[in-house]
Amino acid sequence: MTETVLAGRSAELRARVEQFYATQMRLLDAGEAEAWADTFTEDAVFSANAQSGPTCGRAAIAAAARRTSAELRAAGRTRRHWIGMSAVEPAEDGSVRVASYALIIETEVGGSPILRMSTTCDDVLVDDDGLRVRHRTVARDDIAS
Amino acid sequence: MTETVLAGRSAELRARVEQFYATQMRLLDAGEAEAWADTFTEDAVFSANAQSGPTCGRAAIAAAARRTSAELRAAGRTRRHWIGMSAVEPAEDGSVRVASYALIIETEVGGSPILRMSTTCDDVLVDDDGLRVRHRTVARDDIAS
Amino acid sequence: MTETVLAGRSAELRARVEQFYATQMRLLDAGEAEAWADTFTEDAVFSANAQSGPTCGRAAIAAAARRTSAELRAAGRTRRHWIGMSAVEPAEDGSVRVASYALIIETEVGGSPILRMSTTCDDVLVDDDGLRVRHRTVARDDIAS
Repeated sequence: MTETVLAGRSAELRARVEQFYATQMRLLDAGEAEAWADTFTEDAVFSANAQSGPTCGRAAIAAAARRTSAELRAAGRTRRHWIGMSAVEPAEDGSVRVASYALIIETEVGGSPILRMSTTCDDVLVDDDGLRVRHRTVARDDIAS
Repeated sequence: MTETVLAGRSAELRARVEQFYATQMRLLDAGEAEAWADTFTEDAVFSANAQSGPTCGRAAIAAAARRTSAELRAAGRTRRHWIGMSAVEPAEDGSVRVASYALIIETEVGGSPILRMSTTCDDVLVDDDGLRVRHRTVARDDIAS
Repeated sequence: MTETVLAGRSAELRARVEQFYATQMRLLDAGEAEAWADTFTEDAVFSANAQSGPTCGRAAIAAAARRTSAELRAAGRTRRHWIGMSAVEPAEDGSVRVASYALIIETEVGGSPILRMSTTCDDVLVDDDGLRVRHRTVARDDIAS
C-alpha cells in the first residue's frame, strides 16, 4: 500500500512539473516578462555559465526577459524553449530537484528554424502557492566546463 | 482523499494525451494516411496559418496526408513530428485543451537531419471511443502573426 | 474500479519510463560508460541499422560507449540524446515495449549546436532490480529501410 501511494505521488509530481515547464516557458517565449518572473520565487537565483554572476530576484529576472524579448521582437524572431529529459527528484526539505536538457529553437519571419542553443537546466522547485523556481542553473553546451 | 483522486486524474490525463500524440504522429510519419485521419473526429477541423482555409473532415485530412506522404516518399525523406511542452487543460464540456510546441525533423536518405519547421499546435481533444482531435490549429513560427 | 487501477498503473509506468530515459541517457552523455552499461541487463542486445551486427552484453555495450566518449572528449564535443514521443505498452510477459523517437544534438566548444542524428528507438524494458533495457533497436533515419 505504501509503495502504491508513493508511486502515485511520483507520477503526479512529474505531471505537475511538466505542466509547470510548459506554462512557464511559453510565458518567456511570448515575451510576458512579468508573468514569467512570477514563476520564480521572490528571492530566486538564476545562474548561467554564460553570465559573470547570477541574476537575483524577480525584478532582475523580469528585466532580463524584457531586454531579450525586445531584441527578438525587433529582429522578427520567435524563440521556443524546449525542456526535456527531466529527472525529477523530491528532496527531503520538500523541494524538488529537476535536472533537464533544454533547447532553444529560433525562427525568423520568412526563415528556417535554427537550433540556437543546447543547455542543461538544473532547477530547485518549491511549492510556493503553486510550483515556482527557487534556483535555476543553466549551462550552455558550447562553453567548456 | 478528494484531492488525491483529482491529482490522480491529472497525471492519468497527461499520460493518455502523451500516449495519444506518440501514436498519432507516428501514423503520420509512417505515411498511414487513413489510420492518421482516424485519430480525428469525423467532422474535425484542421486549421493552419500556412493554409488559406481549414481542412474539414476525415476524408480531407486523409487526402492531405496522402499527398504529403507521396511527395516525401518520392524524395526519399523521412519526417518526424515531435509534439512537446504540452499544457493540458480539461474543459468544462469534457473536452481537453492541449497547447503544445511541435517540431518537424526531416532526414534524406544519406543526408543529415534538418529542422524543417517549428510551430505551435493547439488541440481540442475529445473522448470519442478513445481520444481524438476535434479541432487542431497549427501556427508556423516563420509566418508573422 | 478495475479500469481506474489500470489507468493509474499506466501513468505510473509512463513516469517510471521517462525517469529511466532521463537518467540513462544522461549517463551516456556524461561519458559514464560503466554506469550506462549497467542500465542494460547483463545479456542485453543492442541492435542498430548502422552496424553490421548487434552489440551483445553489458561489457560490449560499455566498451562501445567508452570509445565514442573518448572520441567526443578529444574533439571537444558534447552530445545530448533526447528520447521522446514514446508509446509505452506493457507486454503479457511483464516486460514493457517502448517505441520512441530519438535525437542527438551535438555542440562543439565555441560552436553552434547541430542536429547530428534522428532515429527511432525501440526498447524492451524489464524490471530487473529497477528498469533495464533487455533489447534496444536503433534505426537511423538517413539509412534506407
